[in-house]
Amino acid sequence: MLVAGKPMSSVWIEADGWSVGIIDQTKLPHALATLRLASLDDAVHAIASMQTRGAPLIGAVAAYGMCLALRADPSDAAVEEAYTRLVSTRPTAVNLKWALDEIMAGVRNRPRGERVAAAHVRAAAICAEDVANNEAIGRHGLALIEGVAARKPPGASVNLLTHCNAGWLATVDWGTATAPIYKAHLKGMPIHVWVDETRPRNQGASLTAWELGQAGVPHAVIADNAGGHLMQHGLVDLVITGADRVTATGDVCNKIGTYLKALAARDTGVPFYVALPSSTIDFALTDGIAEIPIEERGAAEVATMTGRTPDGRIETVTVVPEGAKVANYAFDVTPARLVTGLITERGVIAPTRAALAAAYPERVRG
Amino acid sequence: MLVAGKPMSSVWIEADGWSVGIIDQTKLPHALATLRLASLDDAVHAIASMQTRGAPLIGAVAAYGMCLALRADPSDAAVEEAYTRLVSTRPTAVNLKWALDEIMAGVRNRPRGERVAAAHVRAAAICAEDVANNEAIGRHGLALIEGVAARKPPGASVNLLTHCNAGWLATVDWGTATAPIYKAHLKGMPIHVWVDETRPRNQGASLTAWELGQAGVPHAVIADNAGGHLMQHGLVDLVITGADRVTATGDVCNKIGTYLKALAARDTGVPFYVALPSSTIDFALTDGIAEIPIEERGAAEVATMTGRTPDGRIETVTVVPEGAKVANYAFDVTPARLVTGLITERGVIAPTRAALAAAYPERVRG
Repeated sequence: MLVAGKPMSSVWIEADGWSVGIIDQTKLPHALATLRLASLDDAVHAIASMQTRGAPLIGAVAAYGMCLALRADPSDAAVEEAYTRLVSTRPTAVNLKWALDEIMAGVRNRPRGERVAAAHVRAAAICAEDVANNEAIGRHGLALIEGVAARKPPGASVNLLTHCNAGWLATVDWGTATAPIYKAHLKGMPIHVWVDETRPRNQGASLTAWELGQAGVPHAVIADNAGGHLMQHGLVDLVITGADRVTATGDVCNKIGTYLKALAARDTGVPFYVALPSSTIDFALTDGIAEIPIEERGAAEVATMTGRTPDGRIETVTVVPEGAKVANYAFDVTPARLVTGLITERGVIAPTRAALAAAYPERVRG
Repeated sequence: MLVAGKPMSSVWIEADGWSVGIIDQTKLPHALATLRLASLDDAVHAIASMQTRGAPLIGAVAAYGMCLALRADPSDAAVEEAYTRLVSTRPTAVNLKWALDEIMAGVRNRPRGERVAAAHVRAAAICAEDVANNEAIGRHGLALIEGVAARKPPGASVNLLTHCNAGWLATVDWGTATAPIYKAHLKGMPIHVWVDETRPRNQGASLTAWELGQAGVPHAVIADNAGGHLMQHGLVDLVITGADRVTATGDVCNKIGTYLKALAARDTGVPFYVALPSSTIDFALTDGIAEIPIEERGAAEVATMTGRTPDGRIETVTVVPEGAKVANYAFDVTPARLVTGLITERGVIAPTRAALAAAYPERVRG
């Protein structure tokens, strides 16, 4: 997608042919800084500290982290250690393990001398597949937006609401929830996006708003509390979020607060869609609330906010009383009954076991 | 309520017998500063700049502002001017006009020499009535908490969730939503409160968390997004919020985001109560969503956060991209169908026209 008018993706191989470039997303929206990852340690740190984030992008960077580990030491022991360290950087996202398993499958039975190259081929394929999947998600989601537009007066904006950042910054390119938005905007359709700021980490205010601003998509940042009010008053036509993990039955684990927006959408008759590549679907799970462990993160994310001062410095300020106790749950689960449809690379699928199995027969064990 | 182990209220008469003490709430939670109001100008500034806030407390401080004006000049012209200036300090608070009308009724037909004393008597009565109402709300709400406790294992904490600040800082003492919480805590019951930070103005993180911390009530600050997840996992026994305005049919207008918590409570079977003095009920309204205008406030509340830096300075930082558009709706309406009960000074009332009319027959015009 465009940054200051130039195309950019969120992970790339540097000119040296082996080290890995990423955007330091902890610096956005105040500065566009890039990082060069040259070791397993760099990759582990980048994922764990959320310099790079978003389920599909974590998978891609972890895959390249395996390449970096293999470059230093292609032994079985080193491969296993790299896998173990990378897979435990973040507990919730399923793409991480999927991408690491892909790399493992590609290197396990190969001679040591071929392992780095084989891993790079697989990592590049993971990235290419992500872009292709998101482009397909964009096409299928665009049809939904066009359907809404057809029922509005000619020229009226379609109002979308999104939560967190399921944008191109969370993937290799296009994004998942944003792919239909970018497709509609590139086609010249009038659209407007309500961007949940997405406390505690503010991925909406800092990343989605930045992406949309760079691409020229009309939008407004809102407090996470505001979406229900907007829906009650007819100001939202369509909700599209991303997903961190989807069960075989269509339950959606996504950024904390998604469930609240799905409830409001149901209560007000607003369609609630979730955009995801099928790698996000965990066909082993059938009950999202009972089975998906929810990551608890550090108190500082809730207790503090980072931003820029009027004179341009970046400061982190504490917003709670000295010593206040804080709880920080990172995700929640939206039951399938609240989801209108899952926008995948194979089309818009009903959030049911039967529909998912029919769309992905090769993923379901008979 | 207790502050650093000593009882404090949010407005008081100073030792000189006439000037008015308040807490400067714009400094909380980072510093406890008090202000001495000695003139009408002081009172007008304190309300308009939100050094003092919360609908019941604004009424009380405005009443004392009339006392200060009368002390300087008890003429009819001065009284009228004071009324006009005080009533326009804040646009929406219904208690403000009510309290000023009370003072006017007490001084209008009196000789000048008696006006200051008469105003002080009425202002003190307004404060006493607020405290008595909240104490009654506390008693009725305590019974609900005891009911929950009776169904839990002995010694298990009752988990409450609250949104925004309907605490003693918003009233003269006790608070509304917090009154049952303080009653339970003072009785020695094990309770724990989830405190929604309440973006964009952070009244939960800055005021409710401070109040509860000073009183020694166990609590944790959470992102506004987290409540649904907590309820899905059985971690909330009871929700109690305040209200800015309640219709004759039980619709509740309260801080933006309240509706989302009510939806989650309904979806997960958690009781959702609203605590309010009956002065908050507007018997002229029957449809909260259609009839209550929702204030849109400045962009800076969403775009920025104020807090303390590690070295103790207070800074305001911008969290959205440079120039990002922001929308800021201050309240939303929770339909009566989502409300379990209204905790008022006359007991817990069903959110229906019939039940409210039966409880407040003198307020309903036949």
